[in-house]
This record gives sequence, C-alpha cells and structure tokens, in this order.
Amino acid sequence: MSTNDAWLEAIAWGPDGLIPAIAQEHGTGSVLMLAWMNREALRLTRETGYAVYWSRSRARLWHKGEASGHRQRVHAIRLDCDGDVILLEVEQQGGIACHTGRHDCFYRELDTTGDWVEIAPVLKDPAAIYGSI
Amino acid sequence: MSTNDAWLEAIAWGPDGLIPAIAQEHGTGSVLMLAWMNREALRLTRETGYAVYWSRSRARLWHKGEASGHRQRVHAIRLDCDGDVILLEVEQQGGIACHTGRHDCFYRELDTTGDWVEIAPVLKDPAAIYGSI
Repeated sequence: MSTNDAWLEAIAWGPDGLIPAIAQEHGTGSVLMLAWMNREALRLTRETGYAVYWSRSRARLWHKGEASGHRQRVHAIRLDCDGDVILLEVEQQGGIACHTGRHDCFYRELDTTGDWVEIAPVLKDPAAIYGSI
Repeated sequence: MSTNDAWLEAIAWGPDGLIPAIAQEHGTGSVLMLAWMNREALRLTRETGYAVYWSRSRARLWHKGEASGHRQRVHAIRLDCDGDVILLEVEQQGGIACHTGRHDCFYRELDTTGDWVEIAPVLKDPAAIYGSI
C-alpha cells in the first residue's frame, strides 16, 4: 500500500476525531454493525485489508476479531456525500459480527405494540467466543 | 399509535441527545444514508411511518423528503446490541436518497491507488429536485 495519506484528507472527522463506520456484509447486504474510526483506524483498515475500529469504551484501536477471531475482511471502502460516514463492505469471518454471538447487532425490532422483540438467534454462546474467566 | 413512550427508554442517547440512524432500502438492501435522531425524531418516525431525523447543521427536526419529496416509508425499526444505533428499513420514494441526486450517499469508493472514485450516477439534477432560487 502507498504511504501517501492524501485520501484521508477527504474525511470530515468529527470534533472528537471520529466518524461512524457501517459494516455491511458482502453478498447478503446485511448491515452487521456500526462502530467508530479515527484516522489511524481507517488507515490500518486499508493497509491490512481487515476492519480496524476505534473503541470508544476502551479508548484504543480495536482490530475487529482480535479476541473472537471474527475478523472482517474488507472488500470495499466507501465514503458518503458529506465525507463523514464510512461504509465498509466486508466478509464476516465466522458469520458472527455481534458480541452477543448473533450474526449482526440489529437483532431487536420494534413491533406494532411498541415492544422491542428479538428477531435473530444467538449462534454461539459469547462465553465460548471470548472464553470465560 | 400508543402514547406510551416506554420503548424510547431502551435507547442509549449520546451526550448530545442523538444517535446515528442508518437507512437501508427495503428489497435491495442498499445502505442509503446515515443521519441522526433525537428522541422526538424517533418518536415521530414511528408515529408517522416516515423517517424523521434531527438535522445537526440546521438544528431542527428534518422530515426526510420535506423539500425533495423523497420521503422514506418505514418498514421496520431495529436497534443494535448497545442500544445506541438505529437501523431503519425503508422504501425510498423517488429512488433518490442523497441530496446530490444519487440513489444513495455512498457513491465514492476507494480504489487500489488510493483515490476516491465516483461509482454511481446522478439520477436527477439537485437544482431540479430542490428548485433553484
């Protein structure tokens, strides 16, 4: 990969230096998750070919799948009209993007009575994914 | 619709009272755009059945399509594992979500040389969508 970072200048980083990044599954089109990126996370995503985010809760770079093995191989990096949202097209390794052990993070849907109902199964016990202590 | 707003209590609003909302096209699965919602925007989205966002630049509620006619009829409202991202499944009226006149906002893609290239056409001149003054 080039060491020329000119492409990063097109990004309108937020006041906290972050922008939201949506991961969409290659092939199925499923929206898997939304996480955050800083400049270094986006640069590393391109360089490594795997999604790297900025974990706001841990305040550090987060190589997605570093603990779970559920890495996201990047097929495409897209940018929106305002330059402040990234859309990744990814291959989700292991078929599980969510830390709850589900395929994707959007497993709650509002029903007509105003209740959030779970619409997707847990595919793997999180304790088995991350190990229990 | 019920006046019971208990379902809104599940949302982990950000410090600014907002959360990101992704609009995904019903049928095609295309990610159309990402915008922001406050509590009132989300409540109105459910009540009206059409996407309502909070415009950060204009600091007011934004009934998507109010100027363009390109409204988004909501098929489903989903919430992510952390309760801080909304995913809307919508029917995009007019087939144009982006203010640039394109189908969706993610029309720039990073190529192998590190350039952002436009991968989607303008379907309608924005001047014709919004009127020129």
